[in-house]
Amino acid sequence: MKQKLVVIKIGGNVIDNPELLNIFLKAFSKIKSPKILVHGGGKIATEIAEKLGLETTMHEGRRITDKPMLDVVTMVYGGLINKNIVALLNANNCKAIGLTGADGGIIIAKKRHPEPIDFGFVGDIKQVDSALITSLLAANLTPVFAPLTANTKGEMLNTNADTQAQAIAVAMSHIFETELVFCFEKNGVLTNSDDENSVIDNLVYTDYQNLKLSGAIFKGMIPKLDNAFKAIEDGVKSVRICHAKNLNLIIENQKTGTIIQ
Amino acid sequence: MKQKLVVIKIGGNVIDNPELLNIFLKAFSKIKSPKILVHGGGKIATEIAEKLGLETTMHEGRRITDKPMLDVVTMVYGGLINKNIVALLNANNCKAIGLTGADGGIIIAKKRHPEPIDFGFVGDIKQVDSALITSLLAANLTPVFAPLTANTKGEMLNTNADTQAQAIAVAMSHIFETELVFCFEKNGVLTNSDDENSVIDNLVYTDYQNLKLSGAIFKGMIPKLDNAFKAIEDGVKSVRICHAKNLNLIIENQKTGTIIQ
Repeated sequence: MKQKLVVIKIGGNVIDNPELLNIFLKAFSKIKSPKILVHGGGKIATEIAEKLGLETTMHEGRRITDKPMLDVVTMVYGGLINKNIVALLNANNCKAIGLTGADGGIIIAKKRHPEPIDFGFVGDIKQVDSALITSLLAANLTPVFAPLTANTKGEMLNTNADTQAQAIAVAMSHIFETELVFCFEKNGVLTNSDDENSVIDNLVYTDYQNLKLSGAIFKGMIPKLDNAFKAIEDGVKSVRICHAKNLNLIIENQKTGTIIQ
Repeated sequence: MKQKLVVIKIGGNVIDNPELLNIFLKAFSKIKSPKILVHGGGKIATEIAEKLGLETTMHEGRRITDKPMLDVVTMVYGGLINKNIVALLNANNCKAIGLTGADGGIIIAKKRHPEPIDFGFVGDIKQVDSALITSLLAANLTPVFAPLTANTKGEMLNTNADTQAQAIAVAMSHIFETELVFCFEKNGVLTNSDDENSVIDNLVYTDYQNLKLSGAIFKGMIPKLDNAFKAIEDGVKSVRICHAKNLNLIIENQKTGTIIQ
């Protein structure tokens, strides 16, 4: 039987809320099984870019990353956010090691084709070195990934954190029984986005398609759920979408968030 | 017999010179024995701090690191510089992994006492986890350290790169026959700082003391050489101080720079 592994992604809204981040990290450090954290970016990169006189251009909620913006996200995601999370986890007795896809060539990406939209220095993941991640886990280390990869030419690439978490979970599912958890600022997938109590406990693909058609599921939830179903299709045991403050409930095997299997 | 290990430190002046950095990284990636890189900071942190409206305060050539400056060095040293070096090394078939002392609790430091000078968030190294570094080397990884550590409370700390390289080399010398190399923008320790041909081939402690007294060795070379002699005293096999462009000569076992044994 495969050993259990949990891959947890926290979104930018959690990063931007130090109190919530702290609650989350304390719970995360208590997980006994091998674990991996993938964090998003948050607003800090945009704020620092503004102070440096750079303009942030978005296309359908995704950042366009020119070279100066690539430098900002490399330093903010890979340095400021990643290393502070790592230092806090180690202070909580979790031997966290901060990584980007560039480290050890652990995630190889390709710069996205400039057609139809030129997103700039944005990476699409081609390969995850699951053997290297496994050897880090075997050394009792907890990998903490910033949403950055590199191509084989040595260029850093900005990478979507949800997709990166999914790609890591899929690659690891060949070795471990892998659960993927998306932690964010809502209680789960909601049938009514204004009602935090309208959480769907279990979501299957056909219901997802119907909820999308009815407009109940929209905007940022769509790529997140597409990622989730892709992960299941590609071998991940289960995906959960829940509030970052409720990670402790998962550890205690209590019901929380939406489960996709 | 112990296996050979080389710990190489590159200074900020090398970081600030992309062409020289590239020559250095290409040579570094060709070293066959286990190897570790420690890099300094360079001027980029100061430039970014200025753009962000922060003032850089120095005391005898050492930066005073208040909290906003700590955030800048964490992102610039730990993110921008470290990850770009790592991506370039991986593109040269060297499986580099970027680290700070915070990662895996690999270097534990203590915030420096605020008396007589309050340097702010500056770390003095207390402990290096040589077993963890050895397990990374055994996984065929090349650790690349940014000049940052953390304390046990989870606070990041700005750390002198020369001292960090020395502490790593000393810790590793219990396991490996360790050579420490300081690469910078001069040909070695010079008897006349204006003459790049006045390199001292071999420097012993008594000669160093005399050259210091005569004023031939001064300023930044003094802490560098103090570090070098401390490393030898504490078990490092040899220390070399040479130009970053000449790293290839070391690999080819040719004479370059100043050797301290």
